[in-house]
Amino acid sequence: MTERKVLDSAVVSRIMDSLDVQEAIRLIGAEITEIASGFCEMRMPMTEKITQQNGYVHAGILATLADSAGGYAAYTMVPEDSNILAIEFKMNFIAPAKGDEIIARGNVIKSGRTITVCHVNIYALDEGNETHWSIMQQTLIRIDPKK
Amino acid sequence: MTERKVLDSAVVSRIMDSLDVQEAIRLIGAEITEIASGFCEMRMPMTEKITQQNGYVHAGILATLADSAGGYAAYTMVPEDSNILAIEFKMNFIAPAKGDEIIARGNVIKSGRTITVCHVNIYALDEGNETHWSIMQQTLIRIDPKK
Amino acid sequence: MTERKVLDSAVVSRIMDSLDVQEAIRLIGAEITEIASGFCEMRMPMTEKITQQNGYVHAGILATLADSAGGYAAYTMVPEDSNILAIEFKMNFIAPAKGDEIIARGNVIKSGRTITVCHVNIYALDEGNETHWSIMQQTLIRIDPKK
Amino acid sequence: MTERKVLDSAVVSRIMDSLDVQEAIRLIGAEITEIASGFCEMRMPMTEKITQQNGYVHAGILATLADSAGGYAAYTMVPEDSNILAIEFKMNFIAPAKGDEIIARGNVIKSGRTITVCHVNIYALDEGNETHWSIMQQTLIRIDPKK
Repeated sequence: MTERKVLDSAVVSRIMDSLDVQEAIRLIGAEITEIASGFCEMRMPMTEKITQQNGYVHAGILATLADSAGGYAAYTMVPEDSNILAIEFKMNFIAPAKGDEIIARGNVIKSGRTITVCHVNIYALDEGNETHWSIMQQTLIRIDPKK
Repeated sequence: MTERKVLDSAVVSRIMDSLDVQEAIRLIGAEITEIASGFCEMRMPMTEKITQQNGYVHAGILATLADSAGGYAAYTMVPEDSNILAIEFKMNFIAPAKGDEIIARGNVIKSGRTITVCHVNIYALDEGNETHWSIMQQTLIRIDPKK
Repeated sequence: MTERKVLDSAVVSRIMDSLDVQEAIRLIGAEITEIASGFCEMRMPMTEKITQQNGYVHAGILATLADSAGGYAAYTMVPEDSNILAIEFKMNFIAPAKGDEIIARGNVIKSGRTITVCHVNIYALDEGNETHWSIMQQTLIRIDPKK
Repeated sequence: MTERKVLDSAVVSRIMDSLDVQEAIRLIGAEITEIASGFCEMRMPMTEKITQQNGYVHAGILATLADSAGGYAAYTMVPEDSNILAIEFKMNFIAPAKGDEIIARGNVIKSGRTITVCHVNIYALDEGNETHWSIMQQTLIRIDPKK
């Protein structure tokens, strides 16, 4: 396994400040549990309030977590005053899953001048066992400050 | 414009019962505002609790609404005791949008024996004007009851 | 149906010159049959040389035609000295189809400063009847000349 | 790295027979260079006949190779008399690439009863160096013989 490059504390602060003002992330109860250059892991509890009609977690809630994990992975690789915005993503739902927690691990595949491409794996954690639940392929655009 | 085929009241009841037990839909405050054969419109208020760091609605919340609108559009066309499940979707975010309400209109492109393909348009409603916000292409699988 | 805006003959020439040097397009035998602002229709014969193991046209050949139709639709809306490049696409194959000809109709959904989003419909033409075969959602980036 | 499970020679024969009758694969000059359970590598020369207007390989030709590599990876895991068919795919083009050869490596992420999900990496080989060119996420359906 590749050793992940540790981030500057200034970059980590910038990311945590951004997370703090995300109401949607608070709504679903997600948090960042690991962050490194080109990588972000986020977790959230699997609670009843995010389920659909069969008692499984709603696909859109998985998308919310995965899109954020990919977005923060991409955000670790842009200049300090730039922003990053998803322009599209595609998710496959491999199997319905239950458990206690949802984990999304976002990895930057390519961080270009304008476009970043990420891949995100989503897992259900059930009594310590991870089940591969979903995969996302995501495209983001870097927004530089106006000069 | 194509006139939409009205649904049996039994089908509408089945859909509304399904919606009622979706905690995630209640969480985001969405409702079905129109339903016909192969079509479903859903709406939700654009509130602060669903925003990301820039004050725009989180992409994953749009995915939650759009996936549901596509899912119910597909659900209108399966046999009474069958279920329908999204196996994948892809969304493009055309432009950041603000307003009072989010509208998702799901249309069935093809309802096959096993696979259904839907297209969903998402709009922001701002003082009566609709802005085209996002498009989703979605694939669903029909789950028949075990015999 | 929306009336399509006719293009300047200079723009049409630019597109036809671009098409002329596309070896891959010549390989599959495709041509542009209609072009207007934000729209491009391309056609190709359904011949044996583009089939897969079941005698149906290979999905990747459909992708070649559809990606080109979307690309030229996008190209009609960029400045004269800019280029346009697909950064990603997603295709659904609705049903296997046979016939004499393949038609792809690309429409620009949004032409932004940097990013263009297109939707492409693909049809099989069989003795005058069109069968809806595939849909593509495509994202392109505008490449401006270096100053 | 995971050691790949060797396939029965009967399975390999079935795959090679299938490849032999694919006219589109012959057209682009592709071949299978490695096959194992849940994995397929295909290669093709980077020739002029598959280029678009800038001299780069057409995205649709990459799709043709990648869709085949994913399809054969999936095909290694279905029962002998079943078939497998792509119902959708999504590709990102990470960077334009040149070189002598194109390599696609398809991996099965999940082989379910009806649905298989694959991930395909595409590389340009230039004087022995591989450049990561494109990624595909692909969904396939198993077609069982009618009883």
